[in-house]
Amino acid sequence: MVELTVKLVDVICNYNQVILNDKDAKNMKVTSRDRVQVKSINKSFTAVLLTTKSLLREGEIGLNETLMSNLQAKEGGTVEVTPAKTPLSLSFIKKKLSGDSLSHAEMSQIVEDIVSMTLTPVEMAAFILAQHYQDLSMAEVEYLTRAMAETGVTIDFEEPVYDKHSIGGVPGNKVSLLIVPIIASMGLLIPKTSSRAITSPSGTADTFEVLAPVNFSVEEIKSLVKKTRGCLVWGGTLNIAPADDILIETVEYPLSIDPTSQMLASIMSKKLAIGVDSLVLDVPVGFNAKVKTKEEAVTLSRKFVELGERLKIRVEVGLTYGDQPVGHAVGPALEAKEALEALMGVGASTSLVEKSTALAGILLEMAGLASRGSGQQLALECVNNGKALKKMMEIIENQGGDPNIKLEDIPLGEESENILAPFSGYIVEVDNKAVNAIARAAGAPEHKGAGVYLYKKRGGYVKKGDPILKIYAEKSSKLSEAISVANKSNPVTIEGMLLKHVSALY
Amino acid sequence: MVELTVKLVDVICNYNQVILNDKDAKNMKVTSRDRVQVKSINKSFTAVLLTTKSLLREGEIGLNETLMSNLQAKEGGTVEVTPAKTPLSLSFIKKKLSGDSLSHAEMSQIVEDIVSMTLTPVEMAAFILAQHYQDLSMAEVEYLTRAMAETGVTIDFEEPVYDKHSIGGVPGNKVSLLIVPIIASMGLLIPKTSSRAITSPSGTADTFEVLAPVNFSVEEIKSLVKKTRGCLVWGGTLNIAPADDILIETVEYPLSIDPTSQMLASIMSKKLAIGVDSLVLDVPVGFNAKVKTKEEAVTLSRKFVELGERLKIRVEVGLTYGDQPVGHAVGPALEAKEALEALMGVGASTSLVEKSTALAGILLEMAGLASRGSGQQLALECVNNGKALKKMMEIIENQGGDPNIKLEDIPLGEESENILAPFSGYIVEVDNKAVNAIARAAGAPEHKGAGVYLYKKRGGYVKKGDPILKIYAEKSSKLSEAISVANKSNPVTIEGMLLKHVSALY
Repeated sequence: MVELTVKLVDVICNYNQVILNDKDAKNMKVTSRDRVQVKSINKSFTAVLLTTKSLLREGEIGLNETLMSNLQAKEGGTVEVTPAKTPLSLSFIKKKLSGDSLSHAEMSQIVEDIVSMTLTPVEMAAFILAQHYQDLSMAEVEYLTRAMAETGVTIDFEEPVYDKHSIGGVPGNKVSLLIVPIIASMGLLIPKTSSRAITSPSGTADTFEVLAPVNFSVEEIKSLVKKTRGCLVWGGTLNIAPADDILIETVEYPLSIDPTSQMLASIMSKKLAIGVDSLVLDVPVGFNAKVKTKEEAVTLSRKFVELGERLKIRVEVGLTYGDQPVGHAVGPALEAKEALEALMGVGASTSLVEKSTALAGILLEMAGLASRGSGQQLALECVNNGKALKKMMEIIENQGGDPNIKLEDIPLGEESENILAPFSGYIVEVDNKAVNAIARAAGAPEHKGAGVYLYKKRGGYVKKGDPILKIYAEKSSKLSEAISVANKSNPVTIEGMLLKHVSALY
Repeated sequence: MVELTVKLVDVICNYNQVILNDKDAKNMKVTSRDRVQVKSINKSFTAVLLTTKSLLREGEIGLNETLMSNLQAKEGGTVEVTPAKTPLSLSFIKKKLSGDSLSHAEMSQIVEDIVSMTLTPVEMAAFILAQHYQDLSMAEVEYLTRAMAETGVTIDFEEPVYDKHSIGGVPGNKVSLLIVPIIASMGLLIPKTSSRAITSPSGTADTFEVLAPVNFSVEEIKSLVKKTRGCLVWGGTLNIAPADDILIETVEYPLSIDPTSQMLASIMSKKLAIGVDSLVLDVPVGFNAKVKTKEEAVTLSRKFVELGERLKIRVEVGLTYGDQPVGHAVGPALEAKEALEALMGVGASTSLVEKSTALAGILLEMAGLASRGSGQQLALECVNNGKALKKMMEIIENQGGDPNIKLEDIPLGEESENILAPFSGYIVEVDNKAVNAIARAAGAPEHKGAGVYLYKKRGGYVKKGDPILKIYAEKSSKLSEAISVANKSNPVTIEGMLLKHVSALY
């Protein structure tokens, strides 16, 4: 054990890492990347060691702000450092790598060590890649889900909670902006937390933020829904199931992987943490979606239902068409506007109303407010008689937005350009990835007014020179970028269109 | 692009990482963990970004010594920084994760980016874990092997090169100390590079270092073998196939995994790099070894032979008994002494001479110096007639050791203790892992005199109170540690011995 003086080295790191002068390290017989135990009067943690010759003097330890605050230590204060063994959870990860099953206690220890930032990125990568290559058993998924929920904030709404979730992957999926007011207008509690976009042009939180603030604390959310029964808030800062965010940021996003077991645990841990009783899950199916075939979707859905049973959460799944964007609008402001239009009964998107009321209908049936098979009809009535729109305006007002907002108040990007049909024909495909790429190049989701509006979708007929889609941007440079992406990809395929020209010259 | 002033932040990191003030990062629209391109007048590289509020001022960039020297930049000098895309090799790793095969160019790019430290530990982990879970094709292994050889130092000895390699996993495997002098004494060129111990009590380089220095440059090695035809040197600092060391340190050692494809490429890339023509490979087989069954060993051996054919290296494999230590001695000085004893024709270890001459015999047959089936006889003659011992002393002298060294000159640890048989019976098992753990606890390989001497091995009969093994240490504290490890494990099992007592009380 040595006693060292704390010095701030404020470099953000996604796991516990401390820096020592290499002479102190040598004296302790530890070397770079060994583990050490760091201890203040009240607190302690295990960290990975980095060594330096000149950044710190002998007798000093470098900690970033997070670690200093974890230790309740201040610059100039002292902490004790001793060599430490590798965390027990690492041996459980190795056990998983050799093909064995993990117990509840083992899975909990792994998740605890992820949340306490005790595991290194390589160790976390091994945990995720093990799941990428070998499915966890449902028991293991249950343990993982419970551990992820328990290691974060939990909320007790003290009454049955209804929720809707989409596994994602389809652009323009603004259905929550219809489902939440429908369900809340029927008196059910639906405290909807959503994410911001990571790789898509708009998350539900980005979209609703066009209409009202979405950034609230747990206490504020509880008080919001007391008044309006529903809300549309950002879940990102609530610290619900934080292991999930760490794994996404450290491993899943950099490697573009999302193992099924991790997807199950990610979604269901958040539902468990906020005490959801009944959940309708939207699984978009299609070649361009996350889930390619109906068979795959059914298998996945059964897993969600089984996991729900294990967690005492009733889950029903709606398989939806995922091979083109939902509605016509992609991008925060465009999507918010399209959702409002649908609630107002104006605008063109029948597919948006259809999908939203189908999913809301399942929730109404689960609540016993509609008999089996009649839920969608009831949901549609809520839209058609204006109850859902009225509830939407209440929610907007409750969250600090303008309850008298008009469609023309929603500012779309002032720079815009139509992409025209090169010849006449029927549209046979709309490419989700290309639409996403164009909308992101145009500036979405950072630029709320940026995005893509599709005039026509699959099956629509266009004449040569007709506009197929319109790109909106807030800056002309972004518009040019988006046009360039559109010209290089095939966002919309017209039957007979040359998909690619392959020859010795190209 | 921004121009920034270089500041030394000398924290060792196993991939390219640079630090910027967060305001500069914001201006460049990059954030922590994004990639940036760093460029000096002559050099450039891609690095992962870390941001800081106080460690660096605006306009500064933090680089460690390695990166500064890579850029040929000095503190106070300026470099240009621009946002960069993720490296192309990452898309190839993702391709592998989704189950596809990699081309020669793709595999080469991955290895180049590992060696240039462009890939992060998580990305490298994905590459190794993909191989852990899905075998590479032999074509992919060939590409990987070639890329690993090409991205490091290569040596041309300008004549046929003979070599011996063991896949490891068995304690006391000092056979190279017999094989090299036998082969060199027959006039063949055998420039043996060896590793130091990572997890075992002694690597061949650690063992031979008891007799002579092992740290030489490439040029020195070429001149060494011109004189004596053989050498026993440390390969660690030669920069041969450096990707292998990086992957071992970053991923394989922390996670205790060693995928077959990576093992093949690791061994064969080093052979390819030094121009080996004929290789005899030692594959120890046994429940306590890396390879458990003969069938497994044959499958692995065929892969080595096939890979050899692809690389134009003749490979022949010797399956050897791997379920107990080779010979009786484990630890650098004990093993060096036992090897010398064997060459001198004194000492007890017939198994050591048997194994060494069997493997050396295969090489002599491959060279055409002995007919098939008579190689071992020829190798034995070299030992019995003193030619191998004479060559050993030449090699020792050539590398700067004492050619008149006597057995009693080799200093063993002065602290020692016998472990006694608790009752009479036949020895039915010697546990490799337990022997390793005892020797390491005693101080090996850092303390050259530390280790374990086994009086008896499998099949040997001991009477109650007879010494079974002797522990050597240089420090009494280390001896106590080793005794404690011995008492807690079963290094030697006598028939009838209680292996473990399981009850509600224990």
